[in-house]
Amino acid sequence: MRPKLEDVAKLANVSKTTVSRVLNNRGYLSRETIERVYSAMKELNYQPNVVARQLYKKQTRIIGLLFPTIANPFFGELSAELEKRLYNEGFKVLIGNSMNDPKKEAHYLNQLLTKQVDGLIVGTHNRGIAEYNYEHLPVVAIDRNMNQDIPVIESDNYNGGVLATTRLIKRGAKKIIHTNGPIELETPTKRRRLAYEDTMKKYGLTPLTIMVDFNIPYSEKKQIFTQMFHDHPDLDAVFASNDIDAALIMQLALEQGKRIPEDLLLVGYDGTQVIRNILPGLTTIVQPIEDIAKTAVEVLKQRMNNEETSLEYVLPVTLREGITG
Amino acid sequence: MRPKLEDVAKLANVSKTTVSRVLNNRGYLSRETIERVYSAMKELNYQPNVVARQLYKKQTRIIGLLFPTIANPFFGELSAELEKRLYNEGFKVLIGNSMNDPKKEAHYLNQLLTKQVDGLIVGTHNRGIAEYNYEHLPVVAIDRNMNQDIPVIESDNYNGGVLATTRLIKRGAKKIIHTNGPIELETPTKRRRLAYEDTMKKYGLTPLTIMVDFNIPYSEKKQIFTQMFHDHPDLDAVFASNDIDAALIMQLALEQGKRIPEDLLLVGYDGTQVIRNILPGLTTIVQPIEDIAKTAVEVLKQRMNNEETSLEYVLPVTLREGITG
Repeated sequence: MRPKLEDVAKLANVSKTTVSRVLNNRGYLSRETIERVYSAMKELNYQPNVVARQLYKKQTRIIGLLFPTIANPFFGELSAELEKRLYNEGFKVLIGNSMNDPKKEAHYLNQLLTKQVDGLIVGTHNRGIAEYNYEHLPVVAIDRNMNQDIPVIESDNYNGGVLATTRLIKRGAKKIIHTNGPIELETPTKRRRLAYEDTMKKYGLTPLTIMVDFNIPYSEKKQIFTQMFHDHPDLDAVFASNDIDAALIMQLALEQGKRIPEDLLLVGYDGTQVIRNILPGLTTIVQPIEDIAKTAVEVLKQRMNNEETSLEYVLPVTLREGITG
Repeated sequence: MRPKLEDVAKLANVSKTTVSRVLNNRGYLSRETIERVYSAMKELNYQPNVVARQLYKKQTRIIGLLFPTIANPFFGELSAELEKRLYNEGFKVLIGNSMNDPKKEAHYLNQLLTKQVDGLIVGTHNRGIAEYNYEHLPVVAIDRNMNQDIPVIESDNYNGGVLATTRLIKRGAKKIIHTNGPIELETPTKRRRLAYEDTMKKYGLTPLTIMVDFNIPYSEKKQIFTQMFHDHPDLDAVFASNDIDAALIMQLALEQGKRIPEDLLLVGYDGTQVIRNILPGLTTIVQPIEDIAKTAVEVLKQRMNNEETSLEYVLPVTLREGITG
């Protein structure tokens, strides 16, 4: 006779509810309990049919995360934080790196439409999901405008731009260049550029933004920044739209014999843990990664429960003072 | 009448095989084809029952990845590379960060035993899966000895230790400290320590390894390294077991007025893309992340097909010359 859940509970000396919680990975369970339940399952050769149960319940308890690449520290740390929170709520996390692969967005949407995932959290740089106007999908976007129906979680990009630019101006910089992504990309990070341009004009300075696509290889970025130094020998400050680019600009400046901060002031953006550890001297705008993750999970759960949500959540940023700017 | 796959194929003007490939995310498909199929699905309100099909096929085409945390650049880049390769083979990727949460390994094993994933790739630092001696599970380990039955993919940790230590000795260092994880952890990275100790002795020098648990907070690591400088004022070189620790040691040394490389030589380990970009001056041992990912996917596929595999795959490392050591 095929063993039943009751048999596992009896042998493990726990309640049926506990066995069920172990199988579904829900609620607090001690390691000893989990091991007892597994040992009993093994001894009885019990095979729970989880996939069949999912079919019945019409939910998978899986959330898909889709970002350009988790190899970038910002998305790596954000994904780790999202996974931790979702796991604690009983969800598993499917992850996709969509950089330079726009088809992947369509495939992830497919997962959602075919009920292989319960919801999506997306922060991709491509078009894709945005083009499909399904209504009230369980999707939230991070730092990306998808379409009129999908809530966006973002940090206060405008204030980040004001903080960075004002800082550089107050420290005496006159010729300040800003680096930012392609202007046609529909993302709230554009507001960093807007804030930079507004602030420059407010102080009677001329804004100049250089376009650097996030997705291009490192070697191409190096060329762009080398050209920037060549074209603007009087450059005295850079507000970079991410810390990786800021670090590259710092290296190139040092190679050219420029001193930081004496000859060039520099402010980055993102302020991930790894950058703060490796380059503690970098002045940067810190995005609230934990708050972004917390809010994204809360809003996604509301969407999955068909509750009303706001369409935009703006979270505060802070300036971290280093020695570069 | 409920729409059928044939109806979708007809409306999208593609073959049934193509619709099936779009649904299963397999083989090469142009973006236009995918969009045509989705539009047709939407127009007909076609609902493929993928979960039911999985149940029938007894496979999910999902692989679980379990690492300490993808917030660490090495695991972030490795996970991104694994995901890219698995996706191209038609698999989706579930990700778990197990740092400081040993229960998570048990939960992931649960996923495997209850057929919610087809296979696992693990590089965790806890005990957990290792304790369950199921035979011939579709599991491969990265840099971690699980049990006698699970293949391990690793870079050549011994040679990495020899390269790093020899480099420091040839540059004139005498008092060289090595930092490494807890000795009780069953991982091939222990061989870095062994190689360091063998090489030191070969040159008539006294090895001294300081234990730093990978999983402790940054502030505690800072205390350990501050103590290290305090206890060993004659220290002239450090071989750190990862680049993040190397960067921290570099910061602390500079804060104490030590010059690098004049007063302190430094070699790190891992050589991720992000570290090579941000700290191009760091001399480090580069792990072959792409090769590790490629091999792990190949071996996992062999395990899933019940083919014989080796139990250990050792991949070559290289020394990247910077200015620190």
